[in-house]
Amino acid sequence: MRLSIRTLLYSGKHCRRLFTDTGRRGVCSASMRLVQFCRRGDDGAIRVGVELEAGKGVVDLKDFDSSLPNTMREFLQTGEKAIERAQRALSSGQCVIPQSEVRLLPPVTAPEKVVCVGMNYRDHCLEQNAPIPKEPIIFSKFPSAITGPYDDIIMPNESKEVDWEVELAFVIGQKGKHIKEEEALSYVAGFTVANDVSARDWQMRRNGKQWLLGKTFDSFCPLGPALVTTAAIKDPHNLGIRCRVNGETVQDSSTSQMIFRTEKLVAWVSQFVTLCPGDIFLTGTPPGVGVFRNPPVFLKKGDVVECEIDEIGVIRNAVV
Amino acid sequence: MRLSIRTLLYSGKHCRRLFTDTGRRGVCSASMRLVQFCRRGDDGAIRVGVELEAGKGVVDLKDFDSSLPNTMREFLQTGEKAIERAQRALSSGQCVIPQSEVRLLPPVTAPEKVVCVGMNYRDHCLEQNAPIPKEPIIFSKFPSAITGPYDDIIMPNESKEVDWEVELAFVIGQKGKHIKEEEALSYVAGFTVANDVSARDWQMRRNGKQWLLGKTFDSFCPLGPALVTTAAIKDPHNLGIRCRVNGETVQDSSTSQMIFRTEKLVAWVSQFVTLCPGDIFLTGTPPGVGVFRNPPVFLKKGDVVECEIDEIGVIRNAVV
Repeated sequence: MRLSIRTLLYSGKHCRRLFTDTGRRGVCSASMRLVQFCRRGDDGAIRVGVELEAGKGVVDLKDFDSSLPNTMREFLQTGEKAIERAQRALSSGQCVIPQSEVRLLPPVTAPEKVVCVGMNYRDHCLEQNAPIPKEPIIFSKFPSAITGPYDDIIMPNESKEVDWEVELAFVIGQKGKHIKEEEALSYVAGFTVANDVSARDWQMRRNGKQWLLGKTFDSFCPLGPALVTTAAIKDPHNLGIRCRVNGETVQDSSTSQMIFRTEKLVAWVSQFVTLCPGDIFLTGTPPGVGVFRNPPVFLKKGDVVECEIDEIGVIRNAVV
Repeated sequence: MRLSIRTLLYSGKHCRRLFTDTGRRGVCSASMRLVQFCRRGDDGAIRVGVELEAGKGVVDLKDFDSSLPNTMREFLQTGEKAIERAQRALSSGQCVIPQSEVRLLPPVTAPEKVVCVGMNYRDHCLEQNAPIPKEPIIFSKFPSAITGPYDDIIMPNESKEVDWEVELAFVIGQKGKHIKEEEALSYVAGFTVANDVSARDWQMRRNGKQWLLGKTFDSFCPLGPALVTTAAIKDPHNLGIRCRVNGETVQDSSTSQMIFRTEKLVAWVSQFVTLCPGDIFLTGTPPGVGVFRNPPVFLKKGDVVECEIDEIGVIRNAVV
């Protein structure tokens, strides 16, 4: 089946390029929805693709150009060259895998870092009577927590207080240290949706109040559905952001409420560590989490959590 | 040059095998000192080797058997088969790179996890008048913090309180979740020496008291010199452990002071996350760190820190 290019292009019309003050070109200057997927009935091998218009399938980049890498992290390491080939693949109208044969994986797997930000929404600070932080509060999850956009959240026997947190996530596309805020966006490959699933008992009362363990159970970082390149999003800090549990809206805010924005977070964290392609940032959650409800509400087996951000998409994870 | 096998073997005589209660064979049943190295003057590519008697050079495993992988993490993933080939390489007396041509790298790079344990020495708790923890306190560093056994510790402009912490580290050799304490040692490939370099200002007073940032500056995890397989160490919990700064002994204790031992830590952390080959655990530090001295002492440029553990070796890192 040969589809017309016009049908195929999702947001690929605006090929605007990002230039920094220093004239360096951003890593993801093309508008695309990049995904990792495997073909149903296949051996589960990871492939990198570009999503077409909703439901129209995915362009298999390796099918189009066998020199392209197998994982998103390697794809981002390849830089602008890989992006240009992906655009060619998208324009070709070839190598389209129908939606029914595609199983979406997390858009990035095995990053070096999953950097998380706490207390980063004004309205979320208000709901817990906490002061607005003067500096970002940074913690982490292990990469083993990452799971797919439609995969299950595995309820651990070790926690009785598992909570939801919809978050805007972004992914680093280029290596850097001591990055300036003015240049920071050119280091960001794109944005995706995350659920920063949190075991409140472990986060708040155990492990010497170090948040890591409560945040990093296996499957506690659903991610996806796509890595939407920076150029494809009009303003990442003005997007509706929502979480629904069993269809009921529990979080409903805007990324405009973020205290420390993408540029600031990149600059801040790169004071400490060298950022590299594939590193994932979770930028904090708006109000409406379960633990601050009266009485508190936590997830239970059988629940379905949907996290949604405008212009990016929805992830949907059942609790099992 | 052909060296006799007798000269070459360092601790390879005792090929005892570890069997668990269930009869599963441990991942590192052979006594060896595994290293990652690059050849001086080479392109810096990582190679996996086996260290011979001190100063006698390193067996280049890929030279001996080109099917062996390039990194320790992949080597450990290959499992018992890789270990057996490494033993054959060691016994062959071939493919020995003289010490002068070897630059040792961290024995493991790019692990999925660097798991750290806080407050895990009885005598370290006493020095700060802190209660003995009832459960392990787990935090993490990003893998980007790892640096080689003789590489520099880079003093960040962002901290005025950089401190030393000698620690026994161990490396996971086999994938596992909910691992039982009785079987835990069979999941451990071996042991090495770490310096859990810590910026106390960031660890203790900033970042919402989440320790991550103060612990994870680039170069804040010197590691090495070798991954000494579990079978090569008589009792990992009865080893002298020391730190010297500019030749002066500042920490001098025994791993017998550890509150939660290797088996317990493996079992504990595997309740939360799937452990996988290459994951590194830093098991906590004995007393004598700079921050609890009166007055406090911190590292400055030009200092040289040596961390030493009996039967494993010494790492030596200059502060620049």
